[in-house]
Amino acid sequence: MVRDADATRRRLLDAAAEEFAAFGIAGARVDRIAIAAASNKAQIYHYFGNKDGLFEAVFHDLVVTTLRDSPIDANDLPEYAGRLFDGYVARPHVQRLATWYRLERAGTQDPIDIIAESNAAKVEAIAKAQAEGAVTDRWSAVDLLGLVLQISGLWSGMTPEFAALVDDEDHAHRRAVIVDAVRALLA
Amino acid sequence: MVRDADATRRRLLDAAAEEFAAFGIAGARVDRIAIAAASNKAQIYHYFGNKDGLFEAVFHDLVVTTLRDSPIDANDLPEYAGRLFDGYVARPHVQRLATWYRLERAGTQDPIDIIAESNAAKVEAIAKAQAEGAVTDRWSAVDLLGLVLQISGLWSGMTPEFAALVDDEDHAHRRAVIVDAVRALLA
Repeated sequence: MVRDADATRRRLLDAAAEEFAAFGIAGARVDRIAIAAASNKAQIYHYFGNKDGLFEAVFHDLVVTTLRDSPIDANDLPEYAGRLFDGYVARPHVQRLATWYRLERAGTQDPIDIIAESNAAKVEAIAKAQAEGAVTDRWSAVDLLGLVLQISGLWSGMTPEFAALVDDEDHAHRRAVIVDAVRALLA
Repeated sequence: MVRDADATRRRLLDAAAEEFAAFGIAGARVDRIAIAAASNKAQIYHYFGNKDGLFEAVFHDLVVTTLRDSPIDANDLPEYAGRLFDGYVARPHVQRLATWYRLERAGTQDPIDIIAESNAAKVEAIAKAQAEGAVTDRWSAVDLLGLVLQISGLWSGMTPEFAALVDDEDHAHRRAVIVDAVRALLA
């Protein structure tokens, strides 16, 4: 029974990630998620309370996976940016969900603890590497983290018009541009 | 009469920019826009056809303004990035509208001509500066344009969690980070 419940919860999270990535928080429909997960709305409310609770569970799940798969290495920020990019390619939902979250929820609710804590830990790691002389102090640790994160998202947030200019989907090339750009910041 | 019509159209565009920036395309409500513009839904349909037509008019309007105020100078890409940042600060709607457009419309309709043409002209300008030896050829013109545009949006697309780390809203500092980052790419 526990295993069944876990499987249902997992199916609901996966279906909800698809739905929220496509339509955002306001646009997502709980009944479509229930159908896609071969479940029903009552189960969604049982597990997650409401649509907002479901979004938070989906988002938390993806944040945990991203933090696990792309740990920061302040002594090798170019490769860190490359790993973030790998994660965005492997899980295209992450960037879309984060963007919907920012558009629909920023300013209306408290920052998410796990992201805030993770950011603070990253800033600390970069500041430490700077204090040790391993990383340039041309930028503050916060500014440098911001630049690295922004550059890692280069290909994930392309406008349709820009995407039309990029004539290949060469993963290795795209990754190299990101890694090389961060390397240039640190030179 | 022409002047009245222009004024009404302008009020509708301004009210619609607020509404679309806040709620996106699907979430925007035509009746709220009509009230905010001291107009009515019939006038919106008269001028713009439907909600999609209104969004396109708003977006086109902002794109034209942005292109006019932030022309590319391929021989000074750091300052170009700084000017783009100035524009995002002056018109915070631009980045939000562009992001809603990307999330809600990318892949469902043709690229917008004015943006596609502008991007192509920018790539050409950068390629020319590269051919003249004025700009590094470490990156392709397309990749370099992508990096410059992405870096210029550093502070506009912050997550709430990252924004909480940035303890000031010092415009000059934020601009300097962007200009300096693009400078580092070109070194």
